[in-house]
Amino acid sequence: MPEFMSLTPLSDAIDAFLRALPEVEARDKERIKTSDALGRILAEPIQASTSLPPFDRSSVDGYAVRARDTFGASNSQPAYLKLVGEILMGEPASVSLDEMSAILIHTGGMIPENADAVVMIEDTLKVKNDEIEILKPAAVGENILKEGEDVAAGDIVIAQGAPIRPAEIGGLMSMGNTEVEVFKPPEVGIISTGDEVVAPEKKPGPAQVRDANTYTLKAIVESFGAVAKTYGIVPDEYETLLRTTRKAHQESDAVLITAGSSVSARDISIDVIGALGAPGVLVHGIAIKPGKPTILAVCDGVPVVGLPGNPVSALVVGSMILAPLLRHMIGLEPTPPTPTIQAKLLNKVPSQAGREDYQPVRLHHKEDGWYAEPVFGRSNLIFTLVRSWGL
Amino acid sequence: MPEFMSLTPLSDAIDAFLRALPEVEARDKERIKTSDALGRILAEPIQASTSLPPFDRSSVDGYAVRARDTFGASNSQPAYLKLVGEILMGEPASVSLDEMSAILIHTGGMIPENADAVVMIEDTLKVKNDEIEILKPAAVGENILKEGEDVAAGDIVIAQGAPIRPAEIGGLMSMGNTEVEVFKPPEVGIISTGDEVVAPEKKPGPAQVRDANTYTLKAIVESFGAVAKTYGIVPDEYETLLRTTRKAHQESDAVLITAGSSVSARDISIDVIGALGAPGVLVHGIAIKPGKPTILAVCDGVPVVGLPGNPVSALVVGSMILAPLLRHMIGLEPTPPTPTIQAKLLNKVPSQAGREDYQPVRLHHKEDGWYAEPVFGRSNLIFTLVRSWGL
Repeated sequence: MPEFMSLTPLSDAIDAFLRALPEVEARDKERIKTSDALGRILAEPIQASTSLPPFDRSSVDGYAVRARDTFGASNSQPAYLKLVGEILMGEPASVSLDEMSAILIHTGGMIPENADAVVMIEDTLKVKNDEIEILKPAAVGENILKEGEDVAAGDIVIAQGAPIRPAEIGGLMSMGNTEVEVFKPPEVGIISTGDEVVAPEKKPGPAQVRDANTYTLKAIVESFGAVAKTYGIVPDEYETLLRTTRKAHQESDAVLITAGSSVSARDISIDVIGALGAPGVLVHGIAIKPGKPTILAVCDGVPVVGLPGNPVSALVVGSMILAPLLRHMIGLEPTPPTPTIQAKLLNKVPSQAGREDYQPVRLHHKEDGWYAEPVFGRSNLIFTLVRSWGL
Repeated sequence: MPEFMSLTPLSDAIDAFLRALPEVEARDKERIKTSDALGRILAEPIQASTSLPPFDRSSVDGYAVRARDTFGASNSQPAYLKLVGEILMGEPASVSLDEMSAILIHTGGMIPENADAVVMIEDTLKVKNDEIEILKPAAVGENILKEGEDVAAGDIVIAQGAPIRPAEIGGLMSMGNTEVEVFKPPEVGIISTGDEVVAPEKKPGPAQVRDANTYTLKAIVESFGAVAKTYGIVPDEYETLLRTTRKAHQESDAVLITAGSSVSARDISIDVIGALGAPGVLVHGIAIKPGKPTILAVCDGVPVVGLPGNPVSALVVGSMILAPLLRHMIGLEPTPPTPTIQAKLLNKVPSQAGREDYQPVRLHHKEDGWYAEPVFGRSNLIFTLVRSWGL
């Protein structure tokens, strides 16, 4: 293996790569409708303009009371309270609560003045039109959501840099923030190389194959919320590749190059990446299968990734490197816990000591849980992955 | 609890709901660019127009040879072969392979006529310009990817109904399918109710709150690749709600209603849903927290879901019901295994026997793995979820 001095474990490779990147700096922002902001990253801290709940609310259906009027009440010795009215939803109380009286209230209704507890309807009996029996004592504050219990006006309720999920959209809307400032997504330049590679819309000549990598990588980039800029297919020729890569390096926030598959084509990629800027190539060769001949570089602050040319390696390694890279670039924790599904392997899969293997599998459900059936295929056969559910 | 006869376990409720839905029928299709098809569902089976690989290719850098010329070769007794040329990438061989000769070939290069094996460059020595030593015998077929080994022309390579992931995009592009037929996404009507609820852009009066549910549900619907149609906020009044719900029922593939939070408002929702068509309400009350007062109905073939009015319940139950529902509607396995992260609870969380509890948590990483810190909050406090990472 003349081209590799040593292979770096995947997690070490990613650590070294991310450490060499500049801190996430001021990035371009834009103001958009909150209802369109799903998946975007907040570019401003959100300060609560109002308290939530905005007023004391009942958390149950029942009767608003003064707690002290219910003390000692029981099934055998109910407290008798005068029913003086009803709190309509969306309206403040139109009657006031005097001693030994109660007002009908619904979940979410506004607690009337002087009331300090709500008795659940299940703990009452309506005996006459204007009288109820309280069968259980209520403590002060019982079944009341206090104004500001969720959020106090002035609190920072969502931090700058937070990803906007359905919960954040709900929180923003409930405070009337119908527009938000978000970061513009990073742009990732994608270059495909190889003398044998033609565009998918062309009919390949003998010995030629169509380009799949540009489009699988574009899909991965988009699935992480970033924008893909494609730079077409470049022949395995140093000057041409350097020119296109320089352009991508200037125009993009990150650059992906799928190398030609021959040794000489791979040598050209690493020379081109090395010429882009300091510190240059950090990792050359990762101890994973597929994906060994991967290059990780940072050139003048821009991450540059050289991926293997065969489509399956490009896809598998592309996903594994791009997930932490793009999370880092948008300011998120780069390596959150990976959700997994535990399954038993149906067939034995050989592995080499010290190498992480990512085996495409299909899942089958049986009485005692999930089973994983390995989908075997050589590393440059894309339909191995099409037939698989996961790794 | 006058309104519930009994509470149904979540999985039983979802099963009953999905069983009552009509089979996924012919749905509207559209033809789009494959490069824009990420996340869509394939509406046609894809038949391979070409074999993949389209020709016999080398899987290594080395020399194309006739295997029989290498039999018995070893370090001490190499086979001497005449070097007659090089296979350029993307071009067929320009020379033919005769007895006791070899042609330099790169990974992905086209195997020349008469060759039946490739010897890896590591197992050779170049002694003269026109001669190499073979140090290891090659078996017939060694290091050759045969034409059609991944896919044979005419095979169905992707089934109708398959979700289009980066791998499918790569597979389609490598066969030249630059356009694909996909199903149009289902449209989900969303209705928010409540006399106390106002639109987010309005300033709420005393006792009023802003609508969050329309937007959290829209975000959930969109996160599953469906289209949200919002029908605004409807007061807790039978005739008005029935009119709006009928319209949504006619115009949408599924309808979501977040009920007002009072008992009477919930009664109105269930009466309205009951009036839409047969079989009507299937489940009323689910044994989960939050989310107990959930209604699942199928009315004239259209699924209708009545969700609790408080924002957290609507969001949690909405996600749990919409995930299998929308997967079923687009023709996918409704209940795939849920990827999970295993973590230890940092605090004890009480639960009731026979009830499934979904507790918002934040995660912390320690030496021995992930720990989950419960984020406590009452069920109608949306910022409980904003402060959480997951359930």
